[in-house]
Amino acid sequence: MQAIIRWSEMTPEAQQQALERPVQAVSGTLKTQVASIIDAIAEQGDQAFLELTARFDGVTLTRPELPMARVQALAEQTPDAVKRAIDIAYTNIRTFHTAQQPQNIQVTTMPGVICEQRFAPLQSVGLYIPGGSASLPSTVLMLGVPAQLANCPTRVLISPPNAEGELTPAICYAALRCGILAVYLGGGAQAIAALALGTETIPAVDKIFGPGNAYVTEAKQQVSQRVGGPAIDLPAGPSELLVIADDTADPAFVAADLLSQAEHGPDSQVICVSPSQALLEGVQQALAIQLAALPRQTIATQAMAASSLILTDSMQTAVNISEAYAPEHLSVQVSEPEPWLAQLTRAGSIFVGHYTPESGGDYATGTNHVLPTYGFARNYSSLGLLDFYRRYTLQTVTPAGLQDLGQAIIDLAAEESLDAHLRAVSLRLESERFQQDLALNSAANGQKEPS
Amino acid sequence: MQAIIRWSEMTPEAQQQALERPVQAVSGTLKTQVASIIDAIAEQGDQAFLELTARFDGVTLTRPELPMARVQALAEQTPDAVKRAIDIAYTNIRTFHTAQQPQNIQVTTMPGVICEQRFAPLQSVGLYIPGGSASLPSTVLMLGVPAQLANCPTRVLISPPNAEGELTPAICYAALRCGILAVYLGGGAQAIAALALGTETIPAVDKIFGPGNAYVTEAKQQVSQRVGGPAIDLPAGPSELLVIADDTADPAFVAADLLSQAEHGPDSQVICVSPSQALLEGVQQALAIQLAALPRQTIATQAMAASSLILTDSMQTAVNISEAYAPEHLSVQVSEPEPWLAQLTRAGSIFVGHYTPESGGDYATGTNHVLPTYGFARNYSSLGLLDFYRRYTLQTVTPAGLQDLGQAIIDLAAEESLDAHLRAVSLRLESERFQQDLALNSAANGQKEPS
Repeated sequence: MQAIIRWSEMTPEAQQQALERPVQAVSGTLKTQVASIIDAIAEQGDQAFLELTARFDGVTLTRPELPMARVQALAEQTPDAVKRAIDIAYTNIRTFHTAQQPQNIQVTTMPGVICEQRFAPLQSVGLYIPGGSASLPSTVLMLGVPAQLANCPTRVLISPPNAEGELTPAICYAALRCGILAVYLGGGAQAIAALALGTETIPAVDKIFGPGNAYVTEAKQQVSQRVGGPAIDLPAGPSELLVIADDTADPAFVAADLLSQAEHGPDSQVICVSPSQALLEGVQQALAIQLAALPRQTIATQAMAASSLILTDSMQTAVNISEAYAPEHLSVQVSEPEPWLAQLTRAGSIFVGHYTPESGGDYATGTNHVLPTYGFARNYSSLGLLDFYRRYTLQTVTPAGLQDLGQAIIDLAAEESLDAHLRAVSLRLESERFQQDLALNSAANGQKEPS
Repeated sequence: MQAIIRWSEMTPEAQQQALERPVQAVSGTLKTQVASIIDAIAEQGDQAFLELTARFDGVTLTRPELPMARVQALAEQTPDAVKRAIDIAYTNIRTFHTAQQPQNIQVTTMPGVICEQRFAPLQSVGLYIPGGSASLPSTVLMLGVPAQLANCPTRVLISPPNAEGELTPAICYAALRCGILAVYLGGGAQAIAALALGTETIPAVDKIFGPGNAYVTEAKQQVSQRVGGPAIDLPAGPSELLVIADDTADPAFVAADLLSQAEHGPDSQVICVSPSQALLEGVQQALAIQLAALPRQTIATQAMAASSLILTDSMQTAVNISEAYAPEHLSVQVSEPEPWLAQLTRAGSIFVGHYTPESGGDYATGTNHVLPTYGFARNYSSLGLLDFYRRYTLQTVTPAGLQDLGQAIIDLAAEESLDAHLRAVSLRLESERFQQDLALNSAANGQKEPS
């Protein structure tokens, strides 16, 4: 049975240790393997890509792409219930991400000095969907919907082929819903390398999105460090859930949520924090019962072994623990969540109340399930529509604006000993053209705004 | 005299080469040096920090911080003209960045399913200001104003000490304007390592901002790759300016802008693209005249040697070249800029018209001068207020919401073979508590919204 640990009786060191994440050491061997896969794609493009796919995915393909006609045919094989579920999830995700649409800004910072911030969609994005045996249409939606809303002109999907050298119907159906423009079959470091560098068939993209195994993660890091390399969405790590529960929580609900996280993988982290001993004892018992009935019992058991049920002296301490841990997923199953939510900001996504299972956000509430994990919830954002745009600025200075602002630029450039910066202003101010245009400018303004 | 190259007469290879950036190879030696500096700070904290500062900056300090009382005293020594210039720049930067304030979002994606996106300021930010001999108050403003507006609770500044073991009055004055809470004296990899890992004196921060030399850049990369490491603002590279000019442009203005970029460093990239041969010939002559009078003539001459004046067959080609190059700074000195601006999105910051010198944005228009360079303007954003916040999401599902949404979650979890995910929903739907709460929920809604 999962042990309950008493926070107030622990030393600060033991407390810190209880919240420590398993070390994700990337071996030198893996780094070297990934580097040579990237080199192979750089040098031999499609040929290397197909060879590596044959070697690692055990599927021999004649070309990297899954033609859109075939994607269409496969999508039609999706069972109706799954189609309907994808449609509901698609609509909710689309509704929530549409509300995130950025607005351009124009500000006159002083008379004659107009500054703008504009948003442009990324030109090309590559969406990596892990897979092989599994079918992950939800990840297609989480990456594909914002790419579609941002209207990124090039949006391609890549995913490891199944034994038939294709993708599952559900993935194809979700891809079509999101208006994916091309689909490629490949996985691991070779898929990331192909998206980063391009091959004869696969376009090089400006940003790569999507989760993956250690090879995918390492390849994303390596390509993003290359000169002119693509941006990447988020640093990766194993999935996590922290539940804050009080004595109004249902132990069976809490246990079910903990296990839904634990089944992701043996390195998943699961923590329940509560000021109620009765609740934690109920969770202990519910975990034992529910675990026994799970198909992925072995994985979940391994994950639970590294996880904790923490008894605190108060709700405030429970909240403090969550803020210190900064979980990817945070479930708040307490009677009055609102006051605590004002303090709970260091999490990827927060699930509020007794009827908001964490799996709801994984699939269908509308929030994105690509979230910062491994403590990165303290300094990285959850994936959202903004990640598919670039922000850039513009400024327009009129002659009158330069007359007013010029001296400040000159004085700062002088302070920083950058004379050419200074002269780019003084040379304009001293020019005949400036005097003429200033007069024209004033006359025009005078006409528009007679005093 | 700077050569004019004719775009339409060049092979595609030669065109590509003309827009290629100088390779910024980071040597293995530098990487190893930086790694051992990070290790030294990790192991010996302040002691290593002070030793490295003595070794690399030639200044022996007794402690890493510059006490705020001393910052205050130094700030008072700032000349009035510089104070006034900093005040104007501060106000404009503050005005423009205030307009970037993000808004929380709440959306009911379907009845009983409420999704939110909230923004929280980063808890702690570290601002690196390069320096030593130079005084760069403008960079203090560009990093300090948004940190202040976001109200990040911990915001500290670190900069290499001058010969007196202090910072310039202007830096201190700017830091006080931005409400910097602590100032530390150090530079290079040791400064970045201290901000990333913390020492006895210097706090570890969640995100590190600011430009720097090759050691600083490499250190930022290395610490951001560490487990639990800080986020960083942007990948770095040498500064760049591309000017698009037509025959209404003033050759002297264009030349002055090109030189203001060229004086940054021998590796600065400067390109002028124009469909007007007369304009380019004018720029050639103006460059020769203005260059001869520059204090930083040697640096600017080196930079100009690797730079190009490109004659195109049309404005459209000039615009296409800019989009392919994706410059950090883009100056558009043409008679009718507006139609072209709709196409020009791949740049860090755009300077519109004849009276908007690039140095205006470096200092005082209000836009941020921390920009993606080295081609990253195609996939990274210019620094803005949003970079000092984290986005995270929340969702609240009511019993009625779960009743409607539950089946979609169940069907998707089944498709993805994640049974515990499925059971977290079915177990709730099948519970007695759910039926009771659903009835209560409906009754409450019935009272609120009588039909």
